[in-house]
Amino acid sequence: MMKLYEKFADEIEEAVRRGVFAPGERVTSVRQASQQHGVSIKTVLHAYALLESRGILETRPQSGYFVRAKPPARVMARVAKRTIAAASEVDVSGLVLSTLRSIGAHDAVPFGSPYPDPEPFPWRRINQYANAIARRHASWNLIDDLPPGNPELIRQIARRYAENGVPVDPDEIVITVGATEAINLSLQAVAKPGDTVAVESPTYYAMLHAIERLGMRAIEVPTHPADGIDIDALAAIIARRKIAACMVMPNFQNPLGFQMPDERKRRLVELLSEHEIPVIENDVYHELYFGDARPSTLKNFDTKGLVLHCASFSKSLTASYRIGWAMPGRFRAQVEKLKFLNTLTTPSVPQVAIADYLRQDGYDRHLRRVRKLYRQQARIMMSMVERFFPPGTRTSTPQGGYVLWVELPPRVDSMKLYRAALECGITVGPGTMFSTRNAFSHFIRLNYSYPWTADSEAALQRLGTLATELDAHAKENDK
Amino acid sequence: MMKLYEKFADEIEEAVRRGVFAPGERVTSVRQASQQHGVSIKTVLHAYALLESRGILETRPQSGYFVRAKPPARVMARVAKRTIAAASEVDVSGLVLSTLRSIGAHDAVPFGSPYPDPEPFPWRRINQYANAIARRHASWNLIDDLPPGNPELIRQIARRYAENGVPVDPDEIVITVGATEAINLSLQAVAKPGDTVAVESPTYYAMLHAIERLGMRAIEVPTHPADGIDIDALAAIIARRKIAACMVMPNFQNPLGFQMPDERKRRLVELLSEHEIPVIENDVYHELYFGDARPSTLKNFDTKGLVLHCASFSKSLTASYRIGWAMPGRFRAQVEKLKFLNTLTTPSVPQVAIADYLRQDGYDRHLRRVRKLYRQQARIMMSMVERFFPPGTRTSTPQGGYVLWVELPPRVDSMKLYRAALECGITVGPGTMFSTRNAFSHFIRLNYSYPWTADSEAALQRLGTLATELDAHAKENDK
Repeated sequence: MMKLYEKFADEIEEAVRRGVFAPGERVTSVRQASQQHGVSIKTVLHAYALLESRGILETRPQSGYFVRAKPPARVMARVAKRTIAAASEVDVSGLVLSTLRSIGAHDAVPFGSPYPDPEPFPWRRINQYANAIARRHASWNLIDDLPPGNPELIRQIARRYAENGVPVDPDEIVITVGATEAINLSLQAVAKPGDTVAVESPTYYAMLHAIERLGMRAIEVPTHPADGIDIDALAAIIARRKIAACMVMPNFQNPLGFQMPDERKRRLVELLSEHEIPVIENDVYHELYFGDARPSTLKNFDTKGLVLHCASFSKSLTASYRIGWAMPGRFRAQVEKLKFLNTLTTPSVPQVAIADYLRQDGYDRHLRRVRKLYRQQARIMMSMVERFFPPGTRTSTPQGGYVLWVELPPRVDSMKLYRAALECGITVGPGTMFSTRNAFSHFIRLNYSYPWTADSEAALQRLGTLATELDAHAKENDK
Repeated sequence: MMKLYEKFADEIEEAVRRGVFAPGERVTSVRQASQQHGVSIKTVLHAYALLESRGILETRPQSGYFVRAKPPARVMARVAKRTIAAASEVDVSGLVLSTLRSIGAHDAVPFGSPYPDPEPFPWRRINQYANAIARRHASWNLIDDLPPGNPELIRQIARRYAENGVPVDPDEIVITVGATEAINLSLQAVAKPGDTVAVESPTYYAMLHAIERLGMRAIEVPTHPADGIDIDALAAIIARRKIAACMVMPNFQNPLGFQMPDERKRRLVELLSEHEIPVIENDVYHELYFGDARPSTLKNFDTKGLVLHCASFSKSLTASYRIGWAMPGRFRAQVEKLKFLNTLTTPSVPQVAIADYLRQDGYDRHLRRVRKLYRQQARIMMSMVERFFPPGTRTSTPQGGYVLWVELPPRVDSMKLYRAALECGITVGPGTMFSTRNAFSHFIRLNYSYPWTADSEAALQRLGTLATELDAHAKENDK
């Protein structure tokens, strides 16, 4: 059943499509809209946020909501629709690793990095806690650190979820070496070699890696740049064939940046529950929302323990400590055992140091600062792409996280752009990494977590020029 | 071809068997033997060490070599011969994890622990390096830490191997989260679900875990408590069926403690090379030798790149840092890629801290101290088991490491002993953990890394009494 704010949002979208509100024009203010339509302020805010996520509206500081100049959602949705694929074996990791190596080795402009700029993170502070812990102990006994992990860290993680309205039993949490391990173990707990796993398309390549590594097959489901995985398309796939598990990233998906609306999260969990299909929820960007509050998770709608929720501190606090966790629902015992088999324990001092840090007040302050930074830098990057890139270029409208998904004119080969940019000391994430079948060969992913400087502006301009040249060259060849 | 020292050792063993040297009697001194037999001092030392490893001789500080009162090797060899098994699916990890939990939760006497007493390890020193590194950096970028790992740590590891006569190319080393991850990745690089993997029997249970987790099947090969895996038995198995890989622990095997003689290491590698079978060498105890020098590894005899050598700092420096590595021979690229997929990177500060520690002079001094400690404590534990345990009890003769393998009278059920001991606050490692088929149900493994105190002596005495009672009770029931 459609919620009130969704209905209201659809009405406004229809008005925009019909030209009632022109591109660049300010739409009815929140207060006015609430009075005119007899709905609450909250409903209007929800609706406008949804429209922002769909790329229909944009906000301007202190000015309200405006119709975007080029609504990208429809364009990208069409592209996404084309990506239904037969299940295919996966070999993406070679490309990803060599891309990462280029970034590391060349000290290049890190638009292509999958990691956040570590600079704004409280690295020194956490290290101080680590040092204090180390100094308090004459030695450290591994036997005290068996899975599931440090009890105090587990308690702190559970507390944060509870504060944000996500129902969590601390006994469900298993600490892992980053979310990467959590995802791997979760997948292994619910599927076996040869099984088919449904993923978003485009999808974060770590999802494809996990599937590849365990000898499973990925089936890619069209994914809307604002609404998330196409639930009807997924239902159609489930009706046709046996799906062992589903892997999604409902909040600030990498690369698309959307936040799945609550109603869609609920429908997704209901569909999968009906068929008893476990779903692995990658929620590593959960703290990096641009809205007013932490979004819900699939866990909020899970009644059968089928959601295996995976997350980490790598995107919001420190990546180098490699602390992640799984909340695997009814698969908790299997995941804990697999953790023991895979890496025995997760290093303890980092766990305790993060627990100590979380007990203090600084985390929320740090996060508020980072969220504001990323929100600002997302807008700058989007406007700069509009300015520098060839006509026909479209971008996603990230609702959180720190990556922008850019659709180039169809003739531009993103691998060629990647190589040309690298020669200029600039990296990008080629779209081919996000699928098993070259589905996004004219897309790139850009990282906007780094501060915007004259250098980065020049680099983005250069990138736009390269894309324009590649487009022109391809056009020439077409003749 | 038999080496000179082996021939010489066989002569002495024959003399002992014939009663030329009586139990408890001192054998010819090394210098005298060298003169009498016209062989070098080194050859005599090699031969005596071999006889010690076979349980024929024992050394007493400042006194020389003596014939052991009860040569255990023959008895244990017979037991080992019975353990040829059909390949079987593995489920050992549940037992292991619950055993470890009991140790951790009960603060019990840690005879059952698989980990070394962390007290003599330079924990504070390494933490100081870690803190210094953390303070030198304002932030830490994950992208600089991609596999294979920190270059300076890799260089230090390669240097130590080179100094000990093990041929190593630094480019071959991949840093992992402990040896556990190295073993898992190595196994996955060479075998696939459903494949059969040959292991020692008894074997270190992490080997069984890795096999279990990847859906492979273990075939257990009889393993001599002094000489290692029975190469003829392995050859017979290879002749009968397809073996995808072999997993062994040629130095100070857990639980048996033997050091495979060089000649047998060579023969093992030759046999496997002939059939193109990769071999995973678990060498985590390599630094904890009781002899004069670091033993050779299978790598020393590998001409085809079929040895995947796995090790870590967990047994010799710090377990809680979780730093291990693989040298995967011709499978290097696969292992590196799997590392990236499994846990992305290994935390960096711990890597750099250990590299900094290794560059200083302290490691060898620390190791000399620990080796001496373990050698002494092994002897104490062996003599105490002789003193307190029921007649018919036999022990291994560890040549390194920190665990003793104890064969109880056949009627004693080690799981019953484990449970009875736990009620007294004492832990042991039940023999059933070391096989998939209850093959060692009257064996236990004891950890002697902890300092010998009046309390531990009382605990071992209590354990002996419990074993005696269980034996008597079982005898009663047999009637």
